[in-house]
Amino acid sequence: MEFELKILGSASATPFLDRHHTAQVLTVNGTPYLIDCGEGTQRRLLDQKLRPQRLQTIFISHLHGDHFFGLFGLLGTMNLTGRTEPLRLFGPAGLDEVLTTQMRHSHSQLNFALEFTAVDTTAHQLIFEDKNLTVHSLPMRHRVPCCGYLFREKPKRRRLLADQLPDGLVPAQLTALTQGEDLLDEAGQVLVRNAAVTAEPKRARSYAFCSDTLYTETLANLVQGVDLLYHEATFLDDMRERAAVTHHSTARQAGLLARRAEVQQLLIGHFSSRYRDLQPLLTEAQAQFPWTSLAVEGLTFSVAE
Amino acid sequence: MEFELKILGSASATPFLDRHHTAQVLTVNGTPYLIDCGEGTQRRLLDQKLRPQRLQTIFISHLHGDHFFGLFGLLGTMNLTGRTEPLRLFGPAGLDEVLTTQMRHSHSQLNFALEFTAVDTTAHQLIFEDKNLTVHSLPMRHRVPCCGYLFREKPKRRRLLADQLPDGLVPAQLTALTQGEDLLDEAGQVLVRNAAVTAEPKRARSYAFCSDTLYTETLANLVQGVDLLYHEATFLDDMRERAAVTHHSTARQAGLLARRAEVQQLLIGHFSSRYRDLQPLLTEAQAQFPWTSLAVEGLTFSVAE
Repeated sequence: MEFELKILGSASATPFLDRHHTAQVLTVNGTPYLIDCGEGTQRRLLDQKLRPQRLQTIFISHLHGDHFFGLFGLLGTMNLTGRTEPLRLFGPAGLDEVLTTQMRHSHSQLNFALEFTAVDTTAHQLIFEDKNLTVHSLPMRHRVPCCGYLFREKPKRRRLLADQLPDGLVPAQLTALTQGEDLLDEAGQVLVRNAAVTAEPKRARSYAFCSDTLYTETLANLVQGVDLLYHEATFLDDMRERAAVTHHSTARQAGLLARRAEVQQLLIGHFSSRYRDLQPLLTEAQAQFPWTSLAVEGLTFSVAE
Repeated sequence: MEFELKILGSASATPFLDRHHTAQVLTVNGTPYLIDCGEGTQRRLLDQKLRPQRLQTIFISHLHGDHFFGLFGLLGTMNLTGRTEPLRLFGPAGLDEVLTTQMRHSHSQLNFALEFTAVDTTAHQLIFEDKNLTVHSLPMRHRVPCCGYLFREKPKRRRLLADQLPDGLVPAQLTALTQGEDLLDEAGQVLVRNAAVTAEPKRARSYAFCSDTLYTETLANLVQGVDLLYHEATFLDDMRERAAVTHHSTARQAGLLARRAEVQQLLIGHFSSRYRDLQPLLTEAQAQFPWTSLAVEGLTFSVAE
């Protein structure tokens, strides 16, 4: 099953002709999760043939417009097109007030339950879990309360080796085997040894979304070894003072963090509109961490099972 | 000088791949006025090479998302790109609260003055005037407080006939002539007869923006004889009951109103996403009023002097 990240926008605050504001869709085993929702995200979803009604969960990092102004329109469209299924929304406190103020003045009422959870942006903790994955908050250091999100697949079960299995096992026994148990007879003696008929489970894949933030070394501990790390890289390193003032990172810093965290792959984005050509940002990050890609519009990054 | 309307969006609430939410730019004598600001309007402005910083005045009809969700991002971009010049904003009461709630939570502060005027959407009255034009509100009948806007060029001065003018007139005398006065000598005798050296002024052009609204016959009195009338035509007339329930109009009703109001040209827009092909809407309106056009993305409608 897929574990796949689709990039809908790579721009930072000032828009740019062919770049859009931050929005990403992580799809895990058929379930899409929307991460951030800059202005125009509903149109990007249409472009990518991702039906908004399929979304069940949305994660917003912070309340700067380039990360959530598309949410108003997306919710409106979900409503107009007949949604009745609940929608889970995670984000900093205040997002609910922004939404309800707007809905009050438009005399709007959602015909579906919007289940908002205010995320403590200063804590690293479990905030959500479903059949596919767990999601932990990642404290970012930005000008407003801001958090990243760490998505981890649930631990998987051991795989049955069909040609090694004895005949006649019942479903409960097969389940026990995928959970790593030996099968015992009534006397408690081993009937089927787990290691003989099962293989190691497929590994649980992971994705860490880190935007917007100052370069923060301790973040490396929280995202250690993830398969995919998205880290903002608003500026080149010759603008690191500007990055510090605005609470953003440079491409070099993103690369450094990926190296420290020993991730498999780094994606950089949230590029300042001053960079028409993104190659220097990529080159700078790759000098620290070779396995870096530009997370630009329309690209999909898959993690193999 | 131009009097020109550029259409940035023709869609009603549910978006559609190649249609955008309502936004229009009326340009009069070099000054652009933005009318409504659906999601993505800042990008449409970029596409049309209209720099947001040139906008001094924005008119919002009502607080349904497809008419103003682009305002958040547009103001943000103006701010980020260094605007210091004041911006005038007209719209229904409540728009200011929606904006300030959002700005409070994003810890944002505009570096320019946003001069908001709450428009009484039930009254037909002068709400704005500058060197180019006057703007009157037009009461709409919609599910929420909503008003259209009537833009009229200021009455123009008489035109001087250069080859009829005597030599030696001073600027103050020329100005008096353009204002329709005769020039008198010290004894009060007519020195230069106005009618002999001036021609009728160019006529003052006008544009009425009417969206969203139930078909309302009395509106014809308020927009009588305008050069350009934009009237919403969300549905075909076979859906007039649906139009009545949702407080919208049909293409036939838009045509009827244009005929009653004896306008020069009718533009229809705000099309329901159920209509992939817009020709039936155009045909239906033209059956009532032949001088009808579809107001679709990218089109510009000019009124000659």
